[in-house]
Amino acid sequence: MMSRPRIVEVRQNILKKNDLLAAGLRERFQAAGTSVVSLVSSPGAGKTALLTATLTRLQKDCRVAALVGDLATDCDAERLRASGAPVRQITTGTVCHLDASMIETALIGWTLEDIDVLFIENVGNLVCPASYDLGEALRVVALSVTEGEDKPLKYPTIFNTADVAVVTKMDLADAVGFDRAALQRNLIAVRPDITVLDVSARTGQGMDEWLHLLTTQVGRTPV
Amino acid sequence: MMSRPRIVEVRQNILKKNDLLAAGLRERFQAAGTSVVSLVSSPGAGKTALLTATLTRLQKDCRVAALVGDLATDCDAERLRASGAPVRQITTGTVCHLDASMIETALIGWTLEDIDVLFIENVGNLVCPASYDLGEALRVVALSVTEGEDKPLKYPTIFNTADVAVVTKMDLADAVGFDRAALQRNLIAVRPDITVLDVSARTGQGMDEWLHLLTTQVGRTPV
Repeated sequence: MMSRPRIVEVRQNILKKNDLLAAGLRERFQAAGTSVVSLVSSPGAGKTALLTATLTRLQKDCRVAALVGDLATDCDAERLRASGAPVRQITTGTVCHLDASMIETALIGWTLEDIDVLFIENVGNLVCPASYDLGEALRVVALSVTEGEDKPLKYPTIFNTADVAVVTKMDLADAVGFDRAALQRNLIAVRPDITVLDVSARTGQGMDEWLHLLTTQVGRTPV
Repeated sequence: MMSRPRIVEVRQNILKKNDLLAAGLRERFQAAGTSVVSLVSSPGAGKTALLTATLTRLQKDCRVAALVGDLATDCDAERLRASGAPVRQITTGTVCHLDASMIETALIGWTLEDIDVLFIENVGNLVCPASYDLGEALRVVALSVTEGEDKPLKYPTIFNTADVAVVTKMDLADAVGFDRAALQRNLIAVRPDITVLDVSARTGQGMDEWLHLLTTQVGRTPV
């Protein structure tokens, strides 16, 4: 991620290899009928809370599973397992994002045909995960109301590569003076056709719409 | 930031070069009597709000300036300039952290002898900035109460390389059910001798202690 020619060349090679691996994964997912949804955000934006609530509800109607990436600890995997869904941790060490080869390895031993919807929760990082295709069908960026409405402008690539923006922690919107119209303007400026949903995993606000979007986008019957 | 041997080698060379440049910067800062404080955090943790309030108050007693890194936009530089202090933006494009060469370039035209305290606000990222020495005398990690008490365990390197942790947005502590004791335990587990301060740039809570720490740590008369 440096500007010197040799580094650019190495990075382009990495991304090219990742793209090839991700294309292979995407074919496998499609062949198995597995819909894959990836989730990216800053650290602490509420990905794990959203995903735990999502797994809990969605598994009543379809077979779900999750992979979750972290530099260290398996805190998030433990939280996700509370949903009852199969969950695997990917510990990345110092690596600041998931890549397609990590996904491929983490899937060993799972039968994709037994999974209708697979979620992939990335390392908390609004920069580097943007460049790594994981073979997902839908990329979702979560942004909490506490982070500031300017984030889409300041981290354009991650918003530009996402299909859906989920605005999390809506229960704190009043406490932080959240300006919904300003965020919408900034999202549209970066990604004109992005779908935006407001949710709170704590109060349940917006969860029906989120699950409806998931089940329709990934081709399942709405729950 | 990949595990393959060639990438590790390239990355080690980059870090070695960065370390050399940073050591040179540190010597220049010391010779000029400029104390340099760097600030790292997740996106949206409140670095810019904290720094704007800090610059505003500190410049009454000493000559301050700031460099601020962002992938895109000069929103943060504009906000910091409201303090009246000299501010320069470093636009990193797709680069997820500041490095010593960016600092060196951004300083061209400034006379270090005219700056008592120089702040460097990094790109919002809890992973990659950890590895890049910028020649600073003090590295401060900001962590907002909305992000979750587990962050030191999940992003150990950035907390382990910081001298001070500033817990921001304390005005939201009650609204999010913030567990101060749990955060302290997790901070100490990763970095036993870290100094921890609770602040709110919005209400002013803890700002006196923060300014006192800054002025004593950087060898200035307390303001």
